[in-house]
Amino acid sequence: METKNQEEEEQLVTPWEVSAEKGGKIDYDKLIDKFGCQRLDQSLVDRVARLTGRPPHVFLRRGVFFAHRDFSDILDAYERGQKFYLYTGRGPSSEALHLGHLVPFMFTKYLQDAFKVPLVIQLTDDEKCMWKNLTVEESQRLARENAKDIIACGFDISRTFIFSDFDYVGGSFYKNMVKIAKCVTYNKVVGIFGFSGEDHIGKVSFPPVQAAPSFPSSFPHIFSSKDDLRCLIPCAIDQDPYFRMTRDVAPRIGYHKPALIESSFFPALQGETGKMSASDPNSAIYVTDSGKDIKNKINKYAFSGGQDSVENHRKYGANLEVDIPIKYLGFFLEDDAELEHIRKEYGTGRMLTGEVKKRLIEVLTELVERHRRARAAVTEEMVDAFMAVRPLPNMFN
Amino acid sequence: METKNQEEEEQLVTPWEVSAEKGGKIDYDKLIDKFGCQRLDQSLVDRVARLTGRPPHVFLRRGVFFAHRDFSDILDAYERGQKFYLYTGRGPSSEALHLGHLVPFMFTKYLQDAFKVPLVIQLTDDEKCMWKNLTVEESQRLARENAKDIIACGFDISRTFIFSDFDYVGGSFYKNMVKIAKCVTYNKVVGIFGFSGEDHIGKVSFPPVQAAPSFPSSFPHIFSSKDDLRCLIPCAIDQDPYFRMTRDVAPRIGYHKPALIESSFFPALQGETGKMSASDPNSAIYVTDSGKDIKNKINKYAFSGGQDSVENHRKYGANLEVDIPIKYLGFFLEDDAELEHIRKEYGTGRMLTGEVKKRLIEVLTELVERHRRARAAVTEEMVDAFMAVRPLPNMFN
Repeated sequence: METKNQEEEEQLVTPWEVSAEKGGKIDYDKLIDKFGCQRLDQSLVDRVARLTGRPPHVFLRRGVFFAHRDFSDILDAYERGQKFYLYTGRGPSSEALHLGHLVPFMFTKYLQDAFKVPLVIQLTDDEKCMWKNLTVEESQRLARENAKDIIACGFDISRTFIFSDFDYVGGSFYKNMVKIAKCVTYNKVVGIFGFSGEDHIGKVSFPPVQAAPSFPSSFPHIFSSKDDLRCLIPCAIDQDPYFRMTRDVAPRIGYHKPALIESSFFPALQGETGKMSASDPNSAIYVTDSGKDIKNKINKYAFSGGQDSVENHRKYGANLEVDIPIKYLGFFLEDDAELEHIRKEYGTGRMLTGEVKKRLIEVLTELVERHRRARAAVTEEMVDAFMAVRPLPNMFN
Repeated sequence: METKNQEEEEQLVTPWEVSAEKGGKIDYDKLIDKFGCQRLDQSLVDRVARLTGRPPHVFLRRGVFFAHRDFSDILDAYERGQKFYLYTGRGPSSEALHLGHLVPFMFTKYLQDAFKVPLVIQLTDDEKCMWKNLTVEESQRLARENAKDIIACGFDISRTFIFSDFDYVGGSFYKNMVKIAKCVTYNKVVGIFGFSGEDHIGKVSFPPVQAAPSFPSSFPHIFSSKDDLRCLIPCAIDQDPYFRMTRDVAPRIGYHKPALIESSFFPALQGETGKMSASDPNSAIYVTDSGKDIKNKINKYAFSGGQDSVENHRKYGANLEVDIPIKYLGFFLEDDAELEHIRKEYGTGRMLTGEVKKRLIEVLTELVERHRRARAAVTEEMVDAFMAVRPLPNMFN
């Protein structure tokens, strides 16, 4: 029996709440053990590079995507000439995305380009309507706005279907929801998601909605009779509970278990204790932030591992383990040599926090500017085209 | 605190189980009290006759439909020139319908003709897939077969939309499901429906599916922006729990509470202790039974209130309270004078059970023959036409 106090101090990772052990940061090794997924090791990264004939994505080679389930099975099958499809998604709870929201989409775009495979993107407007108590209309509006940011990540329209649940749930998709729901008891979802009796039944009904896209028959207009097609889900590791449930159900209803490739969380400016907080705009860089905003936020809020005086800094060097500018550069500075150089100079104290932050501001300003230009070019017609229920004729070419 | 034994002996009426108190029959007065609905009294029956300008249906004037919720509000509004729509349904768990299944449809057809109002009929193939563990395909096949029997009851295609959940759930209907689900806690559905933690979450997810048709916005192709339209639901009283829940939710999401008009159960041939049992084909007359089947079942199984010898029968008369042939004639012999005559002659012992059964066999054979002819005339094209998502242009004429 644990006392309440001990429970509170343990790290908590669910689709709705992420918090580290008191005073610490998320222990991803513990999470892998607890969830029962596998570590994504260097041999798998090398294999991806070999199979795709291109260098692995920054997020792969720097361990942002660090865990998986059956990803090696996906690669085995791919090597035998069997393709797969990608499935990722977003809960549209806010108008503007922050950098952490971009991570799975940037990575999914890389996977789509590298493996040349189709992709379905679920916008769970129904979930946000239920959890955030938004109106149906507001959830749908946010889903469409978020779709523009997702499209701006550069997905190939000839291989990508974006859908919102309020638009798309029904028909084959609903049939799979029912088949899934039949295989999961209430006690089971309580164990996985921690629902209580006072939670509304919309919450209890939702897991099959997020599970259904893992099965190709949920998209007859794309995969028609390819029920045997495997699914690979790139996502942050807080979504793992949904897919543990899905993988448990899959063989019972005649499908492959979906494979997963899972990322750590993008840390808040204030430090690596969990995900960023939507309620504190100064905890994150948004894709709508101006160059001035970015400069101000990085300089003012980005937690530094540098020492408290230039003298001490030159003497002891920066603590890279807790330094947010270094973490952020690890996500977004593509040049490995430059990153290594900065880590070395900063870690030994030859480089100051201000210099590292200056470089980070450049990198992020360029990234955000590029995203802004791409998003501005996304028309309503393009959104309609990505969200149209249609075949994807060249999906495996 | 009640003991388990006492609980078992109490009457139980849920959408999935109906059983009388031990050794007795269903106590409908108790049910009205327990559910909190209202008795449908003679003044309401008279009012229906006056407003529609036609004699009340047999099922109204003989108390088959005996309870209601806000039916008088529907009539008040109707009198002010405000129409309403009808909603009824069926869970397609079997190929062939029995006479009890026809009762709500025969009555709904009368209401549609008398009030000249549109009607939506829900076939809950998803429910039966989940509760009866049928495959999706088998549930859908049964839904379509049942639709033919329903159409054979004579509904006006220009005012009637029949839909199956597997076909129709989605869009506006799904939005209403989510809005409803947000307003109902798990504890609440446990209280209403008695689910347990070992029940699958499909069951917990279902009540909003049956609730959604109570709101006109679930059918935008029919009611477009008539969100203010009232709904009247004719059904057997075991469906009341769904609509208690629905009525509780309605004002919280901006709709009228649906009104209900509720029937007692059609008794089994063996006697009035509950609904008929699908697992015992000799407990019911099916619309697929031949004249010979009907004759045999009535003569062999219909519980008689007659005395054990002709001598005693002439002396004491039949006990009409428990006599099934008299109950069945009460449902299906339209001629009030003839029914009264039979009751009198039989009750005083001048008429014998055999004679009453003979008349019942005639009445049911004619009914079933008429139904069989009507069903044989229902083409696949007619089913498609009734189930097409379309406007009902003359629905209020």
